[in-house]
Amino acid sequence: MMTRHVLSVFVRNQPGVLVRVAGMFSRREFNIDSLSVGVTESPEFSRITVVVHGDENLVEQMIKQLEKLPDVTSVERLDESSSVFRGMTMIKVKADDTNRLDVLKMAELFRAHVIDVQPTTLIFEITGDDDKVTAFTQLLSPYGVLEVIRTGLIGLERGEHTIYEHCEERQYYGKNLL
Amino acid sequence: MMTRHVLSVFVRNQPGVLVRVAGMFSRREFNIDSLSVGVTESPEFSRITVVVHGDENLVEQMIKQLEKLPDVTSVERLDESSSVFRGMTMIKVKADDTNRLDVLKMAELFRAHVIDVQPTTLIFEITGDDDKVTAFTQLLSPYGVLEVIRTGLIGLERGEHTIYEHCEERQYYGKNLL
Repeated sequence: MMTRHVLSVFVRNQPGVLVRVAGMFSRREFNIDSLSVGVTESPEFSRITVVVHGDENLVEQMIKQLEKLPDVTSVERLDESSSVFRGMTMIKVKADDTNRLDVLKMAELFRAHVIDVQPTTLIFEITGDDDKVTAFTQLLSPYGVLEVIRTGLIGLERGEHTIYEHCEERQYYGKNLL
Repeated sequence: MMTRHVLSVFVRNQPGVLVRVAGMFSRREFNIDSLSVGVTESPEFSRITVVVHGDENLVEQMIKQLEKLPDVTSVERLDESSSVFRGMTMIKVKADDTNRLDVLKMAELFRAHVIDVQPTTLIFEITGDDDKVTAFTQLLSPYGVLEVIRTGLIGLERGEHTIYEHCEERQYYGKNLL
């Protein structure tokens, strides 16, 4: 069965590390649903979150392969039941003086925040799961949805466990990072 | 001068397209600050947002190179003054019965939302610029910040202009996408 897997990859900021990580997925024909990479509190390290669909057995093999890559410090698989996941979506919709208040009222119900107001357009940010975002987008569609853009999904395990516990150099960047 | 550039790359969901796009940046020694890739409303297309620092002249050349890549449909450079940008950060902090309310009160000031409560930890989501997130993280640090993870930055141009206006196949996926 094609299950969803969320992997959190802790990497050293070296040229080519993202290409190597992404290449590992495409060579094995894992479908990348989303990918997010951003620097951590230490400018030397980044964290890549990848959401893939693929065979359960293959994903375990792939984690082992990822861990062997240069500049990959740690790979963690985020368990669906013991982790929280979030993504953000920005939606640009047509709205003018005649219907702006209606659109803003709907956004309130979905806890979407308006981040830009122009004479004929509004831009919202909304966080949460895909279903909520899809429902909001559908509700806006009669007004004219112009653009939709999403961040990749990110996630953290609940409780005191952290990705750093798996890293050899924990002491080293523990100082820089937090 | 090393200026920040935010590029929005509209791609067909084909194996290897992310590797090719990321490879273009690493070969030219552009430092990727963040990268986000997520599917659009049409499962056939994804949108990659890349934040890089690099030479002003080189970035123009690079956009032309990106546009030539297979499965890249459109590349847009998001102008800093006429666009809005957002990213999301998740922060896990230590908090128990003795100080949970203090931490939650601080989060309220920063409009951070609590998304998980455990006996000894809290997880927050916060959107906004880096300065706000850094200030919040510093305020939390006496309690013990366990993990910080960020999505890549995403952005949209204000007003009615969209990335689709630059695409040849606008009509085709205009039907599917919105």
